[in-house]
Formats: sequence, C-alpha cells, structure tokens
Amino acid sequence: MADPDRARGGLDALPAAPVVVLVGTQLGENVGTTARAMLNFGLFDLRLVRPKCGWPNVKALNACSGAVEVLNRVQLFESVEAATADLHRLYATTARPRDLAKPVITAAAAALETRAAQARGERVGLLFGPEKSGLSNDDLIYADAVLSIPLNPAFTSLNLAQAVLLVAYEWFKAGDLTPPRQEAAPAGRPATKGELDGLVEHLLRQLDAVDFFRAPDRRLSLARTIRLVFERARLHEPDVHLLHGIIKSLARGGTRDGS
Amino acid sequence: MADPDRARGGLDALPAAPVVVLVGTQLGENVGTTARAMLNFGLFDLRLVRPKCGWPNVKALNACSGAVEVLNRVQLFESVEAATADLHRLYATTARPRDLAKPVITAAAAALETRAAQARGERVGLLFGPEKSGLSNDDLIYADAVLSIPLNPAFTSLNLAQAVLLVAYEWFKAGDLTPPRQEAAPAGRPATKGELDGLVEHLLRQLDAVDFFRAPDRRLSLARTIRLVFERARLHEPDVHLLHGIIKSLARGGTRDGS
Repeated sequence: MADPDRARGGLDALPAAPVVVLVGTQLGENVGTTARAMLNFGLFDLRLVRPKCGWPNVKALNACSGAVEVLNRVQLFESVEAATADLHRLYATTARPRDLAKPVITAAAAALETRAAQARGERVGLLFGPEKSGLSNDDLIYADAVLSIPLNPAFTSLNLAQAVLLVAYEWFKAGDLTPPRQEAAPAGRPATKGELDGLVEHLLRQLDAVDFFRAPDRRLSLARTIRLVFERARLHEPDVHLLHGIIKSLARGGTRDGS
Repeated sequence: MADPDRARGGLDALPAAPVVVLVGTQLGENVGTTARAMLNFGLFDLRLVRPKCGWPNVKALNACSGAVEVLNRVQLFESVEAATADLHRLYATTARPRDLAKPVITAAAAALETRAAQARGERVGLLFGPEKSGLSNDDLIYADAVLSIPLNPAFTSLNLAQAVLLVAYEWFKAGDLTPPRQEAAPAGRPATKGELDGLVEHLLRQLDAVDFFRAPDRRLSLARTIRLVFERARLHEPDVHLLHGIIKSLARGGTRDGS
C-alpha cells in the first residue's frame, strides 16, 4: 500500500484481461495465491464477493509471492450481481456442474471466445465459488457458460488458485505468439551439405581401411544409414571440425583388434 | 504405506503417462504438491534425484492432498543419468533457459510430441530442477528439448508444483476428448420452429393491439429483430409456454400509460 500509484501504473501497462470474481472465499491464503496465479498470466482485476476470510487480509499478502499490486486494487462487493454488473460475458468455474441450463465449455475454448469478445471491446469475467461448496445455483444463474477443466476423473482435487492458474494460462496462451518450437542455436553456423559430405567421406575412407563393411552392398546400405544419422544431428561447422578430429584420432590409434 | 498393493493397483489402472524427475528438490512440501498436481492429470511415476529435503519426507505426505499413492512409489536416484536411463525422450523445464544448443518448445507442443512418442511405445520424462537455481547445464545436457511455459514477462514467479501442473495439464488435454463446448440441456425438448412462430405471432398481435409499431415498415423491421432475439434464446417448449403466459398477463393488465 506504500505506493499505490506506482503499483497501478505497473498493472495499467498490461493489456485488457479477464476479471476474476471470487465468491465467499474462506482462506486468505487462497486470495493471495490466486493473485499470484493471475499476475503470472497478466490478469490484475480481482473482485471479492462477501469473502468469509475478511478483507484486507494479512495471510493473502503473505501468500501472494509479490503480486501485491493485484491485492492493492481488490474490490469488495455484496453480491455476484453487483460484482459483474459492468461485464458483458461471465464464465463460471465449478468442480460440481449442476443440472443448470448452461452450456459447458472447456477452459481452452473459453479462452478463444474471451479473446474474440475482448477484440469487440467486451469485458469478460471468471467466477469462482467458495473452496468447499463451489458456486450456488443462485450465483451460477449469472454465467453465460460453465467452464470445465479436464482432469483425471479418479483425482479431481484442485485448489482455488490452481483452477485460476489453469484458466488464466489458457487465456494468456490464446494471445501468445511464442512459436511452438524454436530450433537450437548451437555455436557457429550450420554445416553445409558439402561439409557433411566431406565428413561422411572421411569416415567411410577410414572404415574402408579397416575393412569395416566387408561387402560392397553392405557398404552401400550402411553408408546411407551413416549419412542419415549425421543429417539428423543437424551438425554445425564446429561439430564437423570436432568429428573430423575424432575420426582421425581413432583411425591413427586403431588397434585393429575388432573392438 | 498401509496398503501399497491397493495403491499400486489404483495407479496401474491409469494409461502410460510421462515420468516426472525432480532434481535436488529443497522443500518436502513441493514434492507433495507436485505429486498432487501429477495425479490431477494422471501422472504417477515420480523420481527424485538427490533430494535436498531428504526422503521419505513427512511434509511431502502432509502436502499431497491425498496423492499418497504417487508418493508411495517414489524412486530415488543418485544422478539424472540414472533416473532417465530407461526413457526414450526427455524434456527439461527451466525458468532460466541457458545458451544451450537445445530446441525450446512450448508445453503444448511438447504434449503433442509426447503423445506421438507414446503411441510408438516410447517412454517420456519431464525434468525439473531445484526451486531456487533451476537445472544446471550438466543436467540439461540429457534433455531433447527445453520446455517453455508462456508467462507474463513482468511476473514469472511460478513454483515447482505449478510448473508441473501446467505441463501435466497440457499432456492430459492432448489426449482428452471433452468437446470444446457442450450445449445446455434445459428442461423439456427444444421448441419447434412452429412453436416459435406461434409465440412471435402472439406477441405481435398484442403489440398491434396497443399500437406499439405505429408504422408498417417499423413493424416489419422490429418483428424481424424480435424473431432473432427469440431464435438466439434457443427456447425449449416449457419456455415457450411460460412466455405465452407472460404476454397474455401483460396484455390483460396493460394500463396503456406508455410504461
């Protein structure tokens, strides 16, 4: 609370993100770990409806691992209706989906819907119930859909902050541009095909010298395998240099005892 | 530990899943919360390399929220090499990717690769380092790729069990068949188009009676809007019945004072 302006400044630099609404939270720690999970994925607007743990709460501060900015701007509400009045879309997360007339949607699908809604300028909320009981039907009524998190059906114990973490993660990921795979960048530049040819030829020459192949057709097929192995290794120029040295040393020190 | 046979039986019923290898873990609690996060998503093979917290560890048991079966079959190893000797593929997760010549891959992409490898009968491992320092270069050398979890770059504090949770979640999701969206199933059967026509006609008749539309072209466009609203609501037969009653009651009680 020492420097709320600076804290708000930090969060205001983040792009628009879903609002998290916690209903009747029992443990202050869970508000703290929720704030941490939110900030991990760029969520910062945390609203508490009738928190049973009371507010402000020192246990929340101790458990937030530095996500103090999120706790500093927590807003308190008397009802889900009041806490969600400015939102255009609301997803409810509950471990116990009741027989409500609501669509059930995976966290990943909700993340895509949320991004699309936000692109139209809409504000989206994520509603989470009390730790033990989950959301009541009276609270679920305000939701557009119920979020489901796929889980091992034999072990579905997921705490509040973990549920928030997974839903927030899906939202962040839906706007994240990290390429699925970035190739390694070893030292030096990639070897040319010519350098690879030179390496394979060097190895084959030394293997010929020790009569490794024994028969020409065996040489043909093994030479192909060797080439494939070196291709797969995506060698860089320094690797080729090192391997030339290794082959040379082995050949020079070769005892020809078959080992 | 009371009934390990039964515990093993429970886990053996789960399909093959990635092995989690924790290196030099400092806090027993983190082994417990890791076991819980694993079992949430059907992972059960946990291996500890030189755990600083010691093993067995009562804090791990207290923190595992019932995932005791996973802790009961923890295996201890002296080195990453020994802990991963039977694995065909190994992903390392580190918050501090070093300048190693390793591909960097998102958790989601790794999940797809893992499923494909498992379909070929390969065993896949996930390697996590000590809480403070992360994996050393000596340990990273065994990995096929480094996993990255997309995070808010301004707040990347993620604890060990949360990292395990997200990676395990991606793996589970990659084999999960939950449809992205399941429509609501309200009481009764969906209304027929004819029932919807009847409802709209009833409303239009009552609105005509109070001269709501004032001009024929206005009636045409508003009637279309009304029809669209009712279509979007995906009404079921009991809803249509209820709405007929509401229109009838409003029309009967109408005060024509313009309200």
